[in-house]
Parts: sequence; structure tokens; C-alpha cells
Amino acid sequence: MAATARLAARARPIARPNPGVAALLVQGNCVIARGWTQGGGRPHAEAIALAGIAEGGAKGATLYVTLEPCAHQSQRGPACTDLVIAARPSRVVIGQLDPDPRTAGLGAKRIQRAGIAVTVLDDDVARASLAGYLTRAALGRPHVTLKLAMSLDGAIALASGASQWITGEAARAHVHSRRAQHDAILVGGGTWRADKPRLDVRLPGLEARSPDRVLLTRGVAPDGVTVINEPAQIAALDGVQYLYVEGGAGAAASFLAEDMVDELHIYRAPILIGSGLPALSDIGLASLADAHGRWRHCESRQLGSDTFTSYLRTR
Amino acid sequence: MAATARLAARARPIARPNPGVAALLVQGNCVIARGWTQGGGRPHAEAIALAGIAEGGAKGATLYVTLEPCAHQSQRGPACTDLVIAARPSRVVIGQLDPDPRTAGLGAKRIQRAGIAVTVLDDDVARASLAGYLTRAALGRPHVTLKLAMSLDGAIALASGASQWITGEAARAHVHSRRAQHDAILVGGGTWRADKPRLDVRLPGLEARSPDRVLLTRGVAPDGVTVINEPAQIAALDGVQYLYVEGGAGAAASFLAEDMVDELHIYRAPILIGSGLPALSDIGLASLADAHGRWRHCESRQLGSDTFTSYLRTR
Repeated sequence: MAATARLAARARPIARPNPGVAALLVQGNCVIARGWTQGGGRPHAEAIALAGIAEGGAKGATLYVTLEPCAHQSQRGPACTDLVIAARPSRVVIGQLDPDPRTAGLGAKRIQRAGIAVTVLDDDVARASLAGYLTRAALGRPHVTLKLAMSLDGAIALASGASQWITGEAARAHVHSRRAQHDAILVGGGTWRADKPRLDVRLPGLEARSPDRVLLTRGVAPDGVTVINEPAQIAALDGVQYLYVEGGAGAAASFLAEDMVDELHIYRAPILIGSGLPALSDIGLASLADAHGRWRHCESRQLGSDTFTSYLRTR
Repeated sequence: MAATARLAARARPIARPNPGVAALLVQGNCVIARGWTQGGGRPHAEAIALAGIAEGGAKGATLYVTLEPCAHQSQRGPACTDLVIAARPSRVVIGQLDPDPRTAGLGAKRIQRAGIAVTVLDDDVARASLAGYLTRAALGRPHVTLKLAMSLDGAIALASGASQWITGEAARAHVHSRRAQHDAILVGGGTWRADKPRLDVRLPGLEARSPDRVLLTRGVAPDGVTVINEPAQIAALDGVQYLYVEGGAGAAASFLAEDMVDELHIYRAPILIGSGLPALSDIGLASLADAHGRWRHCESRQLGSDTFTSYLRTR
């Protein structure tokens, strides 16, 4: 399932408005077919995988799929449940049930009733690969990743505002690769005015993946930018499953104060600033006890002399 | 040499006023004797190691020693150079030359002239194990370790001052084990008044290792505490090779502003505080470029849900 979930990264973020699902068909120790949701949401992962084998080729095989096959008819294509039943693999392993009320366990049930063994996991890696879709379903808003780049002592700039550069080239390239995984990117009004950020993806081959740009401000919308006045309005961002909040301290704090951050990406340079601009303004924390137990370590890696550490909000 | 340097940790900090040296005598693939500087500085590591073998037993062996054997006579014992020549190992490998002008290469030269092969390394691990002694010799002051315990966003307390607890039990036990490696422990006047810290070692078996207590303040000295008015006065702290600066933000910043921090120990809890008390006050940084290249990553480890990361000042 972990291998299937890793494959699903290829569908992120281009699968929207559909979830970025992946499927692997395994016969013995061999992967005999694979698929992931295509751009714009169709074809689905299962359809791609099953189209890759000859008729009857799924017999005896196990189909791994990160999300339950859809059970409902759509004008855009057949229900994957029907495709799976027609292909008749021996077993289907499902990473997560689909919260869509039109499927919601019905896909698994129908496949089982057709005489195919079904195993439903509640797999962490599959869940992480579907974060945007599952957060939309559970909380009615995009999955929010907050990025912070800071010194060892938690400053994002000198007191004068100078912030070029805290982190090095490898960290900046990593940020651009994360931008390419998001549907939209948001900064606060202060950062917009101070830094005039382009907020695009400057990696060879990924330039076309630049996300939509969103500004959190009480001011007016610049050309080509969507404006929201408060964090709650991200719920209405059309088709956005993955939102990347890039700064500054005020915007970061307002998303944290509303408990609307699902993932934390911290880039840390081995420098001390002292009396600089802190990474966050007030997040409304009443006591230290309330701060504990909210973040689970996810990944650490070295990027040149900087470190990248990510955390997931425990819910 | 790395194994020998690790052994030298046993001499820290009790060897003072002498350097905490270690020696290993290796015959073929076997360690046949070992030693490290004893409490109060005598006997020296080489004397202990060579006392552990029978007469003539060093023949064909290699003696590894972290610091050049002393060449000068002392009322407290024989010169190690003479002991080594008398034992006649085949080879002597030296981690660091002794900066003491009475030895300073003379020990190595005399051993070589006696027909014993000598290799002088400039070994990083040996240097780190002798940090207190070498810093005293090079900069005329103790080796300073600055400890900072903070949230992910670099706060050491809520804005209200509440700082119990940021880090967990494992991190606090680790701090106590570090205290036991230092000759003296220093806090600023504000931390002293606010927290009434005991600054002792509360680990079973190590209670007697509590370091001297030093206060950086313009105020008067409490009982049993040495007072200094500014960082430069640590040079006069009698017999202190290793100084542990535990806080708060003002004391930390004044040592950093004077470039008197050699080692940085950061304990980080997976919490966000936002608008808390920052880890450092002004350190006199003029531009971001000046902040880079000063700290080299040394160690990272997990302590419960907290992380410990240490850095060495590059000089």
C-alpha cells in the first residue's frame, strides 16, 4: 500500500477536482499494471491500471488502490467498481474508504458481493496521499501546509525586515518543488507589499505547475490574484485541495489561531539572528499545556546546510 | 583515535586544572592498556595506561594519545615523555600537539629522537575532547556552551513569562547530564530572580557533580554564587575549562554578541507558541550575510518528542 500511495504523488495536484488516487495490480511478486488519476480527474487510477492488462489477465492478482473504487455512475466515465468486478482480480486492498456519500463503503461492498475478497485498511500513508481530498470532505476546506523559513532562534528576518537570504539554494529549490504540489499559494498583504513575491515555480520542466495565487488582506486584489479577508474563506477557493501558506508572520499566525494548519514545513538555517522578526505573531495560546500534543513529526532532511522538518497536525 | 577521544570523556570535567586526556595501547587488534587523566589532573592518561602492562609489554605496540605527552618536569609526577620512552612502544599516535609552551612539540620530538615512530594528527574528535583546555590556551577563557530550550518558532516562554514546561522529561535529564560535564554553570540575573534555578545535577549517582554557579548581573552575589558583570570576566573564573550558559535570552545574547560561544545546544519541543519571549535578545548582527558560516552542525538526536541539536562555532 505504501508503494501505491507513493505512486499517487504523480496525481498531485493535477487530479483536481478528483482525489489523486493510485492503483497497483500485483500478480505473485510482480506489478503487472499500475495507474494514477489523470489530469482533470479522469480517467481514474483503476481504469488506467486495468486498461493495461489483457482480458482475463487480472485473474489471481491483487489490486491495491489508495481509495475505495467509486460506486456511482458519472457522465465522465464508468464506475470503477464495475470495472473492477468485470476484471475479476482475486483480491482488492483498499487504503481508505471514500467519504463521498455516493460511494462511502458501497464500492467495497459491491466488489465483495461479486465474490472478490476485499480488505479495507485505514492506512496512514494512503491517508497522507489523499490529504487534500479527505480534508475537503471532513472539514470543508483545503488541506493547508504552512511553510516557515527561519534561523535557529526562530527569526524570519532582521529587525529591519531584511530576509534575503535566510536559507540557501537547496532549500529554495525544495520550496519550489512543494509549490508545484499545491493548487494555490497564499501570502499575507504585508509580505505581498514588502517582497513582491512571484509565487511561481522556477524549476526546469515545472514552470507550468505554478499554483493559483491568493492574498490574505483587507486591501484590494492585484491583477491575477484572488483576495480573501480571513482564513475561513479558503473553504470557497474553487477546486483547491492543497493550499500552501508561505508567509508572513501575521498570515501564518491567523491560520494557526483558527487551527487551520494541517501540515507544517520548517526550513531552518544554521544561523542566529537575535532580536529579529519572529516567525509568528500572536496565535492566541493561553497556556503552554495547550501547545503540546498538536504536532507529530513526519520528515526530516538536510538541504545543503539547512534542515527541512515537517509535522502533521494530530486530529 | 576516535575511540581514544571517546575514552577522554571520562576525564571531563574532573581532570581540571589539567586537560582531560586519554591513552590507548594497542597490540595487533587488541587494546592491551588504557588510561585517562584522573581527578585533579593526576596521574596523567599515559602513566595510567603504561602502569597497566608488564615490563617490556609495550614492545611492538602503538600508543594512541589524544594530546601530546608532556615534556616538562613537575613536582606532581614524572614527564609522560620519559615514561613513554622508557616503555618503548613501536609507535606513538598523537591527536593534538600540546599548546603549553613547556611541551609544544618537544614531547613528540624527544620521543622520535629516542627511535620511536611518531605520528602527529590534527584530529577533530581529539580536539573536541580537549575543547576546554584548548580554548583556554588559544583564547584565554573557558570553552562556552550555550544551551537554549525553545519551541519550533524560537520562543522560550509565553509572553507572560510562563516557561514550564517547553521540553519534556528526557530533554531535561539530558540537560542535567550536560551540566555534569561542565565546571561551572551560568545564568543571567533575570533568570536567577524569575526561576530561582537550583542549577544542580539531579541524576542518580551524579549529584556530587553539580558545577560551580555563576551569575551574570550588575547586582550583588547570592550565597555560594560567583558574580560577574560582563562575559569577558569568565576568563578569570578559577580553574573553569567548561562553562555552561543556561539562559536567559539576555545572558545568551551578551555571550553571542561578544562571540564567546563555542558550542550551541538546542533543545526543541514540537510546539508553536507565537508572540512568546524570543530565545535571544539583540546580538548586534548588522546583516544576514554576517550570520552565515559561523555554526557547523555537530549532533542531532531525538529525546522523547523533543530534538537535541548541537553546533560548533567555526573558527
